[in-house]
Amino acid sequence: VNQRFLLTLPPIVDFAMKDILVLGAGRSATVLINHLDYLAHAEDWTVTVADASATLLEEKVSALKRSEGVHLNVSDKDKLNAMIAGHKLVISLLPPDLHPIVASICVAHGKHLITASYVSDAMRLWDAPAKAKGVMLLNECGLDPGIDHISALELINKIKEEGGHIMGFQSYCGGLVAPESDDNPFGYKISWNPRNVINAGKGVSRYLSGGREMMVPYHRLFRRLKAFHIQGIGTFEGYPNRDSLPYIDLYGLSGCNTFIRGTLRKQGYCQAWHYIIQAGLTDDNVIFRFAPGSTYAQLLAQLIEGDEKQMRSCFAQELGVDDNNILDALEWLGLFGATPLPFEQGTMADFLEDLMIKKLALAKHDKDMIIMIHEVDYVKDGKHFITQAKLVRTGKNDQLTAMAETVGIPLAKAAFLTLKGKIGGKGVVLPLEKEIYGPLMRELDNFGLRFETTTIQTN
Amino acid sequence: VNQRFLLTLPPIVDFAMKDILVLGAGRSATVLINHLDYLAHAEDWTVTVADASATLLEEKVSALKRSEGVHLNVSDKDKLNAMIAGHKLVISLLPPDLHPIVASICVAHGKHLITASYVSDAMRLWDAPAKAKGVMLLNECGLDPGIDHISALELINKIKEEGGHIMGFQSYCGGLVAPESDDNPFGYKISWNPRNVINAGKGVSRYLSGGREMMVPYHRLFRRLKAFHIQGIGTFEGYPNRDSLPYIDLYGLSGCNTFIRGTLRKQGYCQAWHYIIQAGLTDDNVIFRFAPGSTYAQLLAQLIEGDEKQMRSCFAQELGVDDNNILDALEWLGLFGATPLPFEQGTMADFLEDLMIKKLALAKHDKDMIIMIHEVDYVKDGKHFITQAKLVRTGKNDQLTAMAETVGIPLAKAAFLTLKGKIGGKGVVLPLEKEIYGPLMRELDNFGLRFETTTIQTN
Repeated sequence: VNQRFLLTLPPIVDFAMKDILVLGAGRSATVLINHLDYLAHAEDWTVTVADASATLLEEKVSALKRSEGVHLNVSDKDKLNAMIAGHKLVISLLPPDLHPIVASICVAHGKHLITASYVSDAMRLWDAPAKAKGVMLLNECGLDPGIDHISALELINKIKEEGGHIMGFQSYCGGLVAPESDDNPFGYKISWNPRNVINAGKGVSRYLSGGREMMVPYHRLFRRLKAFHIQGIGTFEGYPNRDSLPYIDLYGLSGCNTFIRGTLRKQGYCQAWHYIIQAGLTDDNVIFRFAPGSTYAQLLAQLIEGDEKQMRSCFAQELGVDDNNILDALEWLGLFGATPLPFEQGTMADFLEDLMIKKLALAKHDKDMIIMIHEVDYVKDGKHFITQAKLVRTGKNDQLTAMAETVGIPLAKAAFLTLKGKIGGKGVVLPLEKEIYGPLMRELDNFGLRFETTTIQTN
Repeated sequence: VNQRFLLTLPPIVDFAMKDILVLGAGRSATVLINHLDYLAHAEDWTVTVADASATLLEEKVSALKRSEGVHLNVSDKDKLNAMIAGHKLVISLLPPDLHPIVASICVAHGKHLITASYVSDAMRLWDAPAKAKGVMLLNECGLDPGIDHISALELINKIKEEGGHIMGFQSYCGGLVAPESDDNPFGYKISWNPRNVINAGKGVSRYLSGGREMMVPYHRLFRRLKAFHIQGIGTFEGYPNRDSLPYIDLYGLSGCNTFIRGTLRKQGYCQAWHYIIQAGLTDDNVIFRFAPGSTYAQLLAQLIEGDEKQMRSCFAQELGVDDNNILDALEWLGLFGATPLPFEQGTMADFLEDLMIKKLALAKHDKDMIIMIHEVDYVKDGKHFITQAKLVRTGKNDQLTAMAETVGIPLAKAAFLTLKGKIGGKGVVLPLEKEIYGPLMRELDNFGLRFETTTIQTN
């Protein structure tokens, strides 16, 4: 855009108006910010990254050409309001419960909003106001939710268009560690918000299996597993992820027999995690206080009866654990021994999170790995087929993670397509309509986020 | 009171002012209403019983001399307001979440309120306003909470006054079925709100054991048991009841090693209930819809994987149940078979409640039974003692239950003592002060609700 040319336009044009505002510069933001800067360079756009941490802004924005870091405490509503008013489009990486506040301001100023988070009830309240103002609130546009929707809809609609009748759909995704960096008994390292790892499975878990709407209580979720062997990588297990049932209609699959969205972990993880839940270590309601110098064994002794000096065997006995690999994993994490507590008060989830951050962190040169698998069961011309589509993506290091890439690229591409007028919508929108997932899928494909698809005939 | 004499008093006296208003005429109200009527006869008081059910009012009030039944839908705030304004004292048997609304009106009109429910956070908000108006909001004044507090404080303070140093306090209470009416594999019949039986243990369960503040997650609560054999009656098991820890200070026992408040069930009940929880049958969040003619086996097939025709063995296998007595109990309840569902949509808790109401109801001539046990461990003159105080009370039939008696009598006696000016207080009050529990204990004792106390020396 030639600014001198713009001067001849009517004064309604706001020269100070910037293009893209990114709220939050945390763990998943690196690739998003880099890619937005790259796109901004080509399109002559400006990107603003807002965060409360000056260190994060310095680290992630200072070397970029088209991007500016701005200090923002989101509780400063006036500044948040002014910043949103000064941009054409907002991407929020804030904690999901803040999205509805951002949405309300976006609606007020007529700005589109893009997030990678599940649509909450509070977000849904902004559907009608956003529609009235012609504002798009595009959610579930990261990895999972995000790429899963985009690629699933592409696959499902292709099978349908070719005359296939879909009987079953299963989709599993995991943010994992690459085999070359996998050096712990959980087969896992943390590549996103660790609290989400701890809270996984709380709330309602439902799916459709054999025509039945199944529900799994939290305390049995990590036993309701499906195994996948992925050649050259390893064996994984998936557990049901949240409530899959609303997506049956959203995916256009009402009448199918099986529909599961699940989360993938390396074999062994879920068995150990099951006992972490059984013990009560994921509880986030009750605050415990400890004397200085207390240990994790003393913490566990408030959940498990018996002698803190014999915690491993007390744990095994009370919870009925007969697999030494599981006990070894929990011992390696530091639960049974004299590992000192990092602070004197907190919930069990707080104390568990600290252990996990320390023991399951990605080291500087560690590579994370994303695996996404869709399995579609269908009948065509009287024959039964299974198509599997698979995305495996490995990160470069602890900053340029596959997680940051697969969350960031769809967000960046959605922002790009929106500003170019190639996708659009009004109200609360998910990337489930062909007009949205189609262009996004092509962008992901061009970027190199490509699914490998195989089909076998089963009769 | 001679009304002709009152005519000579200044006009500020409201001749229409009645004495006691009872809100709710349900399951636990029978004995309360009868006893209030008896007291009202002696004291020349009037009692009003308000309920939304004309049948209940007819059944419980019509034969009484000093009591009047008034139709009241509690959502009719104007009528509720007018009724509270027209009485000197209110006893609320409404669902606990309605107590704070009643409290707000009581405070506005300067009327004392008595309930048998735990103090909620919402109730606590009325503490300061009630204090300002000189109103007493006396809660936890039924059986459990209620008689447990009253009798425990009496016992604890007696031991302290005699020079005992208390190391441990355990208190268990159960609303059970009398041995002569016990004819089902749960050893249980419903003598109070069945939904409370289903919801038991949800929320935080904590207690003090060996100096440690223990927490038990819901899914393991019915395995954290203490057994009691009660001569001539049977063997019982207690599980921790809610959060016991706040009561340590309230009971004046800070520094003790062990403090548990628990709920008592006949041996076998908790083992079966554990698997009801494991299956997910107590869930009250997710609504399920079923086709007409569906069965409980079909309902269970949405929680347990496998063939609904083999539900007993699928259940046993998935949950690892190896005790046939447990499976027999669950089969007797109707969970595994072709028992038709009573309605087409509801939560698992709704469907479970219907089964329990039908299978675990007190028959007309069945007798329920209340057992309350306190165990106090203490040291006196260098010797170690255990004092056990025990209340066992058997009901007369399905209306005049021990539960209705032990909930109703403390409420009635507290109302009596309040109106006679013998107990009193301001703000949110529990029967934990000598000035309150003392007179109440004497009334209970006179009525015949007497604890049997035994002390043994253990060293």
